[in-house]
Amino acid sequence: MTHGRFTVAGGGPVGSLLAILLGRHGYEVGLYEGRPDSRVTSIYQGKSINIALSDRGWSSLEQIGISSDAKADAIPMYHRAIHGTDGELSALPYGKEGDAIWSVSRGGINEQLLDIADMEPNIETHFEHRLVDVDFASASAVFRVEGEREIIVAADYLFGADGAHSKVRRLAHNVPRFSYSQTYMPQSYIELTIPANPNGSHRLEKNALHIWPRKDFMLIALPNPDGTFTCTLFLNYFGNPSFESLQERSEVERFFRENFADAMEYLEDPVDIFMEKTASPLFLVQVFPWSFNRKVGLIGDAAHAIVPFYGQGMNCGFEDCAELNRLIEAHDHDWSAIFPAYENARKPNADAIAELSKRNFVEMSDLSGDRLFQLRKKIEARFHDAFPELWTPLYSMVTFSPEVPYSEALRVGDEQNRVMEKIMQLPNIENDWDQQTVLDQLHELASERL
Amino acid sequence: MTHGRFTVAGGGPVGSLLAILLGRHGYEVGLYEGRPDSRVTSIYQGKSINIALSDRGWSSLEQIGISSDAKADAIPMYHRAIHGTDGELSALPYGKEGDAIWSVSRGGINEQLLDIADMEPNIETHFEHRLVDVDFASASAVFRVEGEREIIVAADYLFGADGAHSKVRRLAHNVPRFSYSQTYMPQSYIELTIPANPNGSHRLEKNALHIWPRKDFMLIALPNPDGTFTCTLFLNYFGNPSFESLQERSEVERFFRENFADAMEYLEDPVDIFMEKTASPLFLVQVFPWSFNRKVGLIGDAAHAIVPFYGQGMNCGFEDCAELNRLIEAHDHDWSAIFPAYENARKPNADAIAELSKRNFVEMSDLSGDRLFQLRKKIEARFHDAFPELWTPLYSMVTFSPEVPYSEALRVGDEQNRVMEKIMQLPNIENDWDQQTVLDQLHELASERL
Repeated sequence: MTHGRFTVAGGGPVGSLLAILLGRHGYEVGLYEGRPDSRVTSIYQGKSINIALSDRGWSSLEQIGISSDAKADAIPMYHRAIHGTDGELSALPYGKEGDAIWSVSRGGINEQLLDIADMEPNIETHFEHRLVDVDFASASAVFRVEGEREIIVAADYLFGADGAHSKVRRLAHNVPRFSYSQTYMPQSYIELTIPANPNGSHRLEKNALHIWPRKDFMLIALPNPDGTFTCTLFLNYFGNPSFESLQERSEVERFFRENFADAMEYLEDPVDIFMEKTASPLFLVQVFPWSFNRKVGLIGDAAHAIVPFYGQGMNCGFEDCAELNRLIEAHDHDWSAIFPAYENARKPNADAIAELSKRNFVEMSDLSGDRLFQLRKKIEARFHDAFPELWTPLYSMVTFSPEVPYSEALRVGDEQNRVMEKIMQLPNIENDWDQQTVLDQLHELASERL
Repeated sequence: MTHGRFTVAGGGPVGSLLAILLGRHGYEVGLYEGRPDSRVTSIYQGKSINIALSDRGWSSLEQIGISSDAKADAIPMYHRAIHGTDGELSALPYGKEGDAIWSVSRGGINEQLLDIADMEPNIETHFEHRLVDVDFASASAVFRVEGEREIIVAADYLFGADGAHSKVRRLAHNVPRFSYSQTYMPQSYIELTIPANPNGSHRLEKNALHIWPRKDFMLIALPNPDGTFTCTLFLNYFGNPSFESLQERSEVERFFRENFADAMEYLEDPVDIFMEKTASPLFLVQVFPWSFNRKVGLIGDAAHAIVPFYGQGMNCGFEDCAELNRLIEAHDHDWSAIFPAYENARKPNADAIAELSKRNFVEMSDLSGDRLFQLRKKIEARFHDAFPELWTPLYSMVTFSPEVPYSEALRVGDEQNRVMEKIMQLPNIENDWDQQTVLDQLHELASERL
């Protein structure tokens, strides 16, 4: 028995997960990916790209019934390891004891999900099928195979899970009443590597996300299971310093030495790589609706590409899948009800995490290195311990509280900001922060507002 | 002597004006329009489309040295004529005595500008040349002629003046780091007509912009020189009532009778036209940058399509031209300086009028019919008379004060709002509004804030 045929365009983590859940709900699914199958042809050229997975991602995977095998290869990061300009290190926990965000290999989790998809009897996976066109009325699609040949794939429904540069979304620009925006951030980025020690161990503390916050720019490093770290340098594209202004090799060298002295001992050819690589832009995509004619939908980055500063991109995409999973049951396969319910439920949350992620650049690159910021985090953590029902820090709501929607986290976080601004203005707060009177005052303010 | 060759894509009012000013600055200009020449082939099918022109538009035309011949055919509208549901009429002046916005024929002003362009020795106009492609590195463009044949037009620079649906802008979606958004409004619209009296006179008061404000929707009417009025019905596309919900002829009839009883006496076949026509969407376009590689620029609606509720669309496009006119002189034809100066000067103003225009739907459709709103306007007008240096009402800043940039009008208007909210909360304001104490209080508040 089949409930209908689905084309899923895009075989990344979100597309693979979507295919699995549709398959398990009894749909015939064709999963089409433009690139080769990384399980057969190495397309990552030995490079580890890791992404952050946290409780929303894990709980979405669990909800869809995918055991957390993935966790075996994932590395928990319990705190931010903040590298000062002077090389001084400080640790800032992400949440309560034991709370962690997880560094996972993008390729690894993708391949695990594809393996699961391939075991489902009603899912067919197709690689090197590049999407050319979509008929938004009929959900049929045209794919280019082997460079030249084009095939038409008919289906009852189609989902674009084809990422930030989504072809499905760009084709939808011509659909009447489709609102879309693509907004570039001032920052761009390049990826760098810290190799493993000869014995395969990590050269920096393994269970941490390393940050070199330098206000207008920053370097971060996430651990990989093979002992390496994948590092990302975020820097303005224009201005000073910027990818545009740093043209001379000697200037680039000085830039790294002055700002990342301790990292320079470990980074692999950062100056060469900086000189050779084209910086990748960061952009934000916001669109509405996320579905067309009750036939074609968008999901994951295709619907809501965000900036990476909250580590929530894949988590948000997996939550989209979990929401669909619920709605297919709630509306008993009636897609004329599922599509509008899906986009109305998810759009406010995608907008909220987009906003929170933009703001988090400032927090990571500037405030993380700021003493008062760290003090504020300590006060919030202490208050959370004392009154967990009254106060969960914003970061914890976003990262460790999948039961709190992103939009609610944003709203409550803004209220908390107003409260903490008052607390941080108390005279002598730097000395008195752990006094009962401060806690009392915070309790009173929080009880009023939250 | 030529300073270089320009291609201007789009021969509407803004494109024609741009061509004229470039021609007069010594450039060789090719002006390309996709549609036929309306001076030769009637493309308006007897339909008058009028648009509002106000002081910014007139002063831009003057600055470029185009005499205000256009004013001969334009109809000044000195006030809003507000039609209540009960047929009751009230007048709400736009500004001081003599201040007017002008109803001009879009086709008429376009043809006047094309006539001027055709008299310039170094401008060539080409019609039925449909833009197909732009090379953003070289400023060369491909046009389709006579349906099939394609020609390549080389130039030193190119401007996209091709309107809200700009092909140049849509082609630029693929240019790196180009941020763009296109946002649909809930309202859509259809155009209706009030015919002239048999003797050619107007059936409603001629020198007014007529509004039937009905909160979630509204009808407006602008006079034409031939005695007719062009009317626009703005109504939500979805919801109730909406273009979607009003499907049955009997319902449409009732909708018009209940809401526009007095207009029904004059409107030409409104129910038939409602039933036959597809409602046109309203959308907002915001992009940045407005130029690419110091070779290709965007201007007018192509750079910043706005909603029509402030009657500023063409005025803003003409201001773009006037700004370019100044910058060509200031930077002595150095387009590597002109393009960035142009987009940085105009972008904040385009964003401000976009915001103001969105807000004005609420003002026109809801507040115009509101007694307190009218009282507020009266208080502001009185205060402006008494202290013209201290207070110019927002509408007057936008419409009658071309020396005040849109962005400044928005900022000051928001401050005025905060002041007037306090004034409107004074006890007994409805009776005391013209008392000296109220003026004194307003004076004190305004002196503090503005």
